[in-house]
Amino acid sequence: MNYRMVLNVLGRTLMAEAALLLVPLLVCAIYGEPMTGFLITIGIALVLAVALLLIRPKSKVIFAREGFVIVALTWVVLSAVGALPFVFYGYLNFIDAFFETVSGFTTTGASNLTNVEVLSQGVQFWRCFTHWVGGMGILVFVLAIMPSLSEERPMYLMKAEVPGPTVGKLVPKLKHTAMILYLIYIGLTLLLVVLLLFGKMSLFDALIHSFSVAGTGGFSNRAISAAYYTPFAQYVMGIFMMVFAVNFNIYFLILIGKIKEALFDEELRWFIILIVIAVILIGLWIFPQYSGTEEAFRLSFFQVTSIISSTGLSNTDFTLWPIFAQGILVFLMFVGACAGSTGGGFKVSRLVIAAKGVRNEIRHMLHSRSVNVVKLSKKVVGADVLSSVYLYFIMYVLIIMASTLMLLTNGFDFTTSLTASVSCMGNCGPGPNMIGPTGSYAAFSPISKIVLSFTMLFGRLEIIPVIMLFSPVVWKKHS
Amino acid sequence: MNYRMVLNVLGRTLMAEAALLLVPLLVCAIYGEPMTGFLITIGIALVLAVALLLIRPKSKVIFAREGFVIVALTWVVLSAVGALPFVFYGYLNFIDAFFETVSGFTTTGASNLTNVEVLSQGVQFWRCFTHWVGGMGILVFVLAIMPSLSEERPMYLMKAEVPGPTVGKLVPKLKHTAMILYLIYIGLTLLLVVLLLFGKMSLFDALIHSFSVAGTGGFSNRAISAAYYTPFAQYVMGIFMMVFAVNFNIYFLILIGKIKEALFDEELRWFIILIVIAVILIGLWIFPQYSGTEEAFRLSFFQVTSIISSTGLSNTDFTLWPIFAQGILVFLMFVGACAGSTGGGFKVSRLVIAAKGVRNEIRHMLHSRSVNVVKLSKKVVGADVLSSVYLYFIMYVLIIMASTLMLLTNGFDFTTSLTASVSCMGNCGPGPNMIGPTGSYAAFSPISKIVLSFTMLFGRLEIIPVIMLFSPVVWKKHS
Repeated sequence: MNYRMVLNVLGRTLMAEAALLLVPLLVCAIYGEPMTGFLITIGIALVLAVALLLIRPKSKVIFAREGFVIVALTWVVLSAVGALPFVFYGYLNFIDAFFETVSGFTTTGASNLTNVEVLSQGVQFWRCFTHWVGGMGILVFVLAIMPSLSEERPMYLMKAEVPGPTVGKLVPKLKHTAMILYLIYIGLTLLLVVLLLFGKMSLFDALIHSFSVAGTGGFSNRAISAAYYTPFAQYVMGIFMMVFAVNFNIYFLILIGKIKEALFDEELRWFIILIVIAVILIGLWIFPQYSGTEEAFRLSFFQVTSIISSTGLSNTDFTLWPIFAQGILVFLMFVGACAGSTGGGFKVSRLVIAAKGVRNEIRHMLHSRSVNVVKLSKKVVGADVLSSVYLYFIMYVLIIMASTLMLLTNGFDFTTSLTASVSCMGNCGPGPNMIGPTGSYAAFSPISKIVLSFTMLFGRLEIIPVIMLFSPVVWKKHS
Repeated sequence: MNYRMVLNVLGRTLMAEAALLLVPLLVCAIYGEPMTGFLITIGIALVLAVALLLIRPKSKVIFAREGFVIVALTWVVLSAVGALPFVFYGYLNFIDAFFETVSGFTTTGASNLTNVEVLSQGVQFWRCFTHWVGGMGILVFVLAIMPSLSEERPMYLMKAEVPGPTVGKLVPKLKHTAMILYLIYIGLTLLLVVLLLFGKMSLFDALIHSFSVAGTGGFSNRAISAAYYTPFAQYVMGIFMMVFAVNFNIYFLILIGKIKEALFDEELRWFIILIVIAVILIGLWIFPQYSGTEEAFRLSFFQVTSIISSTGLSNTDFTLWPIFAQGILVFLMFVGACAGSTGGGFKVSRLVIAAKGVRNEIRHMLHSRSVNVVKLSKKVVGADVLSSVYLYFIMYVLIIMASTLMLLTNGFDFTTSLTASVSCMGNCGPGPNMIGPTGSYAAFSPISKIVLSFTMLFGRLEIIPVIMLFSPVVWKKHS
């Protein structure tokens, strides 16, 4: 284990976080709010960063082990530091603030604030900004802006942070890939801001909701979330939640003119099929509750795209819907978005691969000589990826079970405990019963909030890096 | 597809069912109850059997395809015929009776009777007798008593009906294996009957509860289930639910003197560890509700062995327990018993194999050169079995999800719909909320009852055979 290098990279990401904290500081300045909370946080981040950067690594070489530990450790430490403004401005105690910030960076959007509207503009901004930063990945960001990392096998970092069964490099140089991804991300976010302004949102609200949508996070500065805004703004957000839940490689392919290749992506096709079926089913089920087709469609469409993209914004209180409609949402929460997007969940491509694996297994039982090849977008999925996908499903479900059991010690109902786990694992946020759009995670015990924080990290970092953090084998000096 | 042979074997099993129906007929005679209901049922079974046996197969050769279809079709048809007494005696309509009988044969024990105590002794007997027959497997039974089947590759039948990731032949001849298994089964059942008589139960109650325990079913003739009997009888049932949830190969090994080998079985070890942990945790959680340590221990011990063995008898209303204690029961319901036992669920050995697979995957991520071998009881688990176990987990969870979604259309709460699916898939029976020990499945819609019937069959026959029944490929004449 190259400890020195791990701490060194951690120092650099803390430096980056200090820089990111300048943005909400500027917001405080604009709105004439007290700046001390952010200033002290920046100070702490800088002191820690400098202390860590003083440890010079003897070797810059890192392997998978270091990659996983760097990713997991970075996310935990940046969340701990990022939590401080909530504490310094007196909104939350440290554990609650940590939960809120992990929820932000992991783009979950689960909140334990009981009244979000009391937050100052600076803190509102920072809260949603963490979604935007976490959506694309903190280390991918560092990768894109820090040239000196390119020599240290950053592929291990990218593998550990970018979701999905396989990581594709768009261009030969990883650093350039990261930059292209960030440019697409920034471009789409700006487009969204402009469209939301057309939807009669204020610049501030348009900005922070764009962060929330782009990162597929779910935080809002309004107690009633997206229901506060015009139907036009709701449609724009609904569509862009889909846009950011699609593999970014597809936008790259479109940019370089390979439109046919982009649109024949199999995962995209299933993602759209799932959305269409869910919107229709839910629309039919909730229809009698609403005044017209447009309203039922808008609510169904928005909630479906919000949940499948793992965003978690809402334009209605879906806990008042028929239980079947809520069940579909919980299922979509489990499935999640496309790989290589900012969305969470198990991922559509993994589900398609697993389903094809099941189909082959059945065929194999009929004809033991049948060849078992699984293809996705006409490309053969290798045996090791196949087995990884199966095991990921198992780990995913087992973590949800373990998290549910721990939450049940709170004594809340079974549905709340289970769906809170599914929602946090899928980086979605809300769920039926207690954690609905008008509810919050505030009532959970401090230990439960720590458990849920790690469930969110498991979901965002796709399990393995976080397990590494707790594995004694990883921490042995020589192995 | 060798249709003629499929129908021929179906005829033979119907003949066997007609013979089995003579036992409750005898009970009717003893208690002086009307016998017409059973007589007509036997008549129908015989007519069907003779009609099917008149179709002479051109070839007696069967392959995997025929094996799966025979198994699935047999279970559906025998349940449909076995349901008739409930209809003829006026207790249930046909769909409800089918549900009740599938629940019996699959050893689930989920009931849609609202008052079980009104049934006649004959029907009570038949209801619990289906558990006993279904526990070891209907076709294994036919295999054991019908000599002419030995030439028709019956391994395919056994593979499809005996639960667990691998099927071991105890002795070279499969027919002898089946006979040894049935002798162990009968011997243990008789021992149980004697012990229950010592527990002050009447012969009738001792018999039918022995069927229920031996098959890990769960039906009882008492509304308050096992709580009706003495603590001694409860302990005996609790211990025997464990006994019947253990792989029968272990008893065979003990019988032939290989006691060391028997007791070092890894699945057995994990099964006991799970029980000990669950009994302690639940005992601690429910302790404040009860008058003393013995009571808390007895209730915890009985419910844990009842649920993990997938029996579903109860000696208390566990829906009144703290939600955490109920959560542990739901988890055990999912895990289930040991392979090669009469118990249901995902099976302990599969979970151990899956967990070891996960551990290897993590190791592999650290050292890509590491050798990935999974061992169970010191024997290497082959790559194809490994992948089958992973896929079985995925199918198991997906079927539970699909069943839950369908049940949600009833509009009942999420917990009831989900745990009803988990419980029926695991062939357990009861669950939290509506389907607790004092509740029933009566309120579900007819369609939901058919869905749940197939969920039970999926669980009992380990998915693949039932999928085959719905697969068009299987039904093509030439392929």
